[in-house]
Amino acid sequence: MTQIDIGCSLVYDIKRPTVLLLKIAASWTQHQIVNNESLTSSPVLNIETCQIGPDGNRLHRLVVDPCRLTLNYQASAELTPGIERTGDIRESLPAEMPPDVLTYMNPSRYCESDLLGRFAFEEFGHLSQGYVRVQTICDWVHDHLEYTPGSTNSMTTASDVLLQRTGVCRDYSHLAITLCRGVGIPARYISGYAVDLEPPDYHGVMEAWLDGQWYLFDPTRIASTLGLVRIGMGRDAADVAFATITGTATLIEKKVWARSPNDQLSTANNPAVSTA
Amino acid sequence: MTQIDIGCSLVYDIKRPTVLLLKIAASWTQHQIVNNESLTSSPVLNIETCQIGPDGNRLHRLVVDPCRLTLNYQASAELTPGIERTGDIRESLPAEMPPDVLTYMNPSRYCESDLLGRFAFEEFGHLSQGYVRVQTICDWVHDHLEYTPGSTNSMTTASDVLLQRTGVCRDYSHLAITLCRGVGIPARYISGYAVDLEPPDYHGVMEAWLDGQWYLFDPTRIASTLGLVRIGMGRDAADVAFATITGTATLIEKKVWARSPNDQLSTANNPAVSTA
Amino acid sequence: MTQIDIGCSLVYDIKRPTVLLLKIAASWTQHQIVNNESLTSSPVLNIETCQIGPDGNRLHRLVVDPCRLTLNYQASAELTPGIERTGDIRESLPAEMPPDVLTYMNPSRYCESDLLGRFAFEEFGHLSQGYVRVQTICDWVHDHLEYTPGSTNSMTTASDVLLQRTGVCRDYSHLAITLCRGVGIPARYISGYAVDLEPPDYHGVMEAWLDGQWYLFDPTRIASTLGLVRIGMGRDAADVAFATITGTATLIEKKVWARSPNDQLSTANNPAVSTA
Amino acid sequence: MTQIDIGCSLVYDIKRPTVLLLKIAASWTQHQIVNNESLTSSPVLNIETCQIGPDGNRLHRLVVDPCRLTLNYQASAELTPGIERTGDIRESLPAEMPPDVLTYMNPSRYCESDLLGRFAFEEFGHLSQGYVRVQTICDWVHDHLEYTPGSTNSMTTASDVLLQRTGVCRDYSHLAITLCRGVGIPARYISGYAVDLEPPDYHGVMEAWLDGQWYLFDPTRIASTLGLVRIGMGRDAADVAFATITGTATLIEKKVWARSPNDQLSTANNPAVSTA
Repeated sequence: MTQIDIGCSLVYDIKRPTVLLLKIAASWTQHQIVNNESLTSSPVLNIETCQIGPDGNRLHRLVVDPCRLTLNYQASAELTPGIERTGDIRESLPAEMPPDVLTYMNPSRYCESDLLGRFAFEEFGHLSQGYVRVQTICDWVHDHLEYTPGSTNSMTTASDVLLQRTGVCRDYSHLAITLCRGVGIPARYISGYAVDLEPPDYHGVMEAWLDGQWYLFDPTRIASTLGLVRIGMGRDAADVAFATITGTATLIEKKVWARSPNDQLSTANNPAVSTA
Repeated sequence: MTQIDIGCSLVYDIKRPTVLLLKIAASWTQHQIVNNESLTSSPVLNIETCQIGPDGNRLHRLVVDPCRLTLNYQASAELTPGIERTGDIRESLPAEMPPDVLTYMNPSRYCESDLLGRFAFEEFGHLSQGYVRVQTICDWVHDHLEYTPGSTNSMTTASDVLLQRTGVCRDYSHLAITLCRGVGIPARYISGYAVDLEPPDYHGVMEAWLDGQWYLFDPTRIASTLGLVRIGMGRDAADVAFATITGTATLIEKKVWARSPNDQLSTANNPAVSTA
Repeated sequence: MTQIDIGCSLVYDIKRPTVLLLKIAASWTQHQIVNNESLTSSPVLNIETCQIGPDGNRLHRLVVDPCRLTLNYQASAELTPGIERTGDIRESLPAEMPPDVLTYMNPSRYCESDLLGRFAFEEFGHLSQGYVRVQTICDWVHDHLEYTPGSTNSMTTASDVLLQRTGVCRDYSHLAITLCRGVGIPARYISGYAVDLEPPDYHGVMEAWLDGQWYLFDPTRIASTLGLVRIGMGRDAADVAFATITGTATLIEKKVWARSPNDQLSTANNPAVSTA
Repeated sequence: MTQIDIGCSLVYDIKRPTVLLLKIAASWTQHQIVNNESLTSSPVLNIETCQIGPDGNRLHRLVVDPCRLTLNYQASAELTPGIERTGDIRESLPAEMPPDVLTYMNPSRYCESDLLGRFAFEEFGHLSQGYVRVQTICDWVHDHLEYTPGSTNSMTTASDVLLQRTGVCRDYSHLAITLCRGVGIPARYISGYAVDLEPPDYHGVMEAWLDGQWYLFDPTRIASTLGLVRIGMGRDAADVAFATITGTATLIEKKVWARSPNDQLSTANNPAVSTA
């Protein structure tokens, strides 16, 4: 078991009545227990908690009048990821995938797997199937992109990244997801808090459906998958934006943190991790 | 109540073991009762029926060895759409939308509402809110596009259509969905059978979330919304492709039909229809 | 006659042997006399001057070994633009355009007039022809875009801008050029120095071919067309980048200026100006 | 010397007064002598011949009233291409390229070398320079694309092709041009007649600037470069469309032919050919 203390502090300048949807709270799953959680606002406002779908995703909704709004979130997560020998993990057959998983084969806003299907098949279609193929895709993404903050924006897609060869964690994961779908492996986007991320921010990684469950991968290699506290999952980053604003809100300040009091987490020799 | 007899016949040439996912069966909803339904294959194969999500969407899955495969689907649908006075239908506030509906505000593969948000807001942001605003968006789409079979393909997006100004039913609906999301109205894609469609094919329309429920719109005006038998719904056409193939299957023949034995359905004066 | 003193100062950090192509010198045309011109480098290097095409465009080429390179350009330009009554200026017929002008009807890198042809025709095809139609296009561009530094980059195209509705001078001109070509009016991009530009930088405007000659337009309205000292012209910004680098050069500092010692130039009531 | 008999027959339905710009006539160059040339129309119309630029490109312009228009072009070309040993052909340095050649380093409508520069550099930047590098790029294009008529259209760009991995001659050449520019080699598009093309049509190939002159390459390998009769050259296909129409003209029939009465031309072992 790994304990991770997480939190964030957001300050907004609100100019007119605004609805804020926040996806910043750790999700509750079989592998992730959330303790000592608090989400507070100043000024004090009613914060509605919504459960989205069957996977433990949560959303907080606030209706805010013009003000300087400060939000503070903190929690402590206990992670007990399933850890397995990667060599034994095969791919699932389309005939045996649950219907809800089939959805993660569809192309999505930032993961145009229809457009990149031929490329994926040409590059990765002939490889041995299983965990190792997803790992090969993530390695390819890692080796062919240059991690360059500011080189992409919120509308950058996997095909943009494949052409430009630069991006950040969001872009790395989008490309890996797209290439997995392109060879017939369901894949989805995970937002979360990551220990020791530098500079500190929310993190974006991906999961692939293999052998009947979801496995976590981080094509950036900038944080340990053993130290990831999951916020939410979706088809791509469009589903897990940390804040969606209807109205007018300017983000003035954002602090994000994740600390592991006891453990030393390494990005080397990441094992196969199932967390969902 | 309107009765519609629907069906389709698909012939595939299957070259190697293939998994077929079909989305061709009418969904079961409060407003749509499905009778005398049959889906048969020749050669006779096991056809698995999967329920997807809570909205009555169904999927049929077949594992097929090399052969000439013929699929026949038929059913009779009883439609009892809710019909309302359009003037009274207001927009829902973001603060009161159910979490599952909020998902339909996100940009998706063919509906890049993030990219077109400013355009939508500039063109439609100042209009009176309510059913009439969605109708105005659909009218704008109808008036600014030219219905041109062959001018688009399966990867054409709403922004492509906005620039090129041509498309088919799928493209009209994608653009209308995108513009609705752009002004803050949840919207989704509906596939179905439409009476009197010429040439006969599956149809694609859209729904907008207004005043606490979904309302149906057809920006093409080529069929009556009162004669639409719903197959499925999703964020855009990526979610409701009539066939998804893993393997090698060539479509040899496709026939689609929808007939209303008793009624005369008109595309003029379409009322406000809630069907979901 | 208007006299404008122009100049720029560029500092580069050169890491390995590099070839620099500079397009920063005022061109020599019938309407623009260049006096007291100097281009110097520190360290002192051989600077080759190339004439490009028949229109007075010039290019300076330097081969540079690793160093801190400072370039200083200055000149004084005497402008005698042709000024005309706009009402009398008609459009040229395709049958009478010189072959070299026909080239400016072709789509180019940042001006996809093939893609936006239908949009242009729908929006501006029915208008009265002549100078007034180009002015209407420039007004439309001005009114529908928001001038937002940082919202676009060096790869942003006219269709991007049409969708996103934001940009800078380069983007405004690209969109106006594209829309002109879309309705059959040859149009091209002009880089230059503009008096009173705030913040000071190179400027980008456009020219349309009307009634047998080129007329200058500035859809941004941020500087007077009477105070524009032309550097070069091309199909779009791809042809007139102020610096093209083969090797490795980092721009450390850029200063650009243009001053009119005697005149007061106004952006109001800009007359029809032919400068080429 | 190779003699090639070429020609084409075009039939248009003209609905209203229309201006046709044709680029179908063989160009006159040092390596290509054109004999027995005729271009006739029925009904008989005035056909204006325009010279474009200094490279022997020609354009024919017709003003046509409503009619059924038939155009017949034929000529006989004598080709004496320069043939060289490929191993000796080096790349030119940017410092020594003529200014007019530098233009072919710029990105253009269908060849977004700015967008694909990093990809080109990563894939081909480290290779030995010279003729062999351009040949490697053409081989890569040949090996990674599938020749699929109908998979692209007149607006498809090199980056589209790089993602989709299918195309026709135009697309193969656009991608090869883009990748050459991406590693610093000037490259341009050539339209022409090709002996033994199947099905018969105009052909599109490319030229790269090496060692002080242009060399011809055909990444499709579907015709011999020794049997290419050049029509025109440009930055990409935008510059050499065989017909540009202002008005309304529907192409009813198109026949294109190129025959070599005496020679057997092979696509195997194509030598290095300079033709311009």
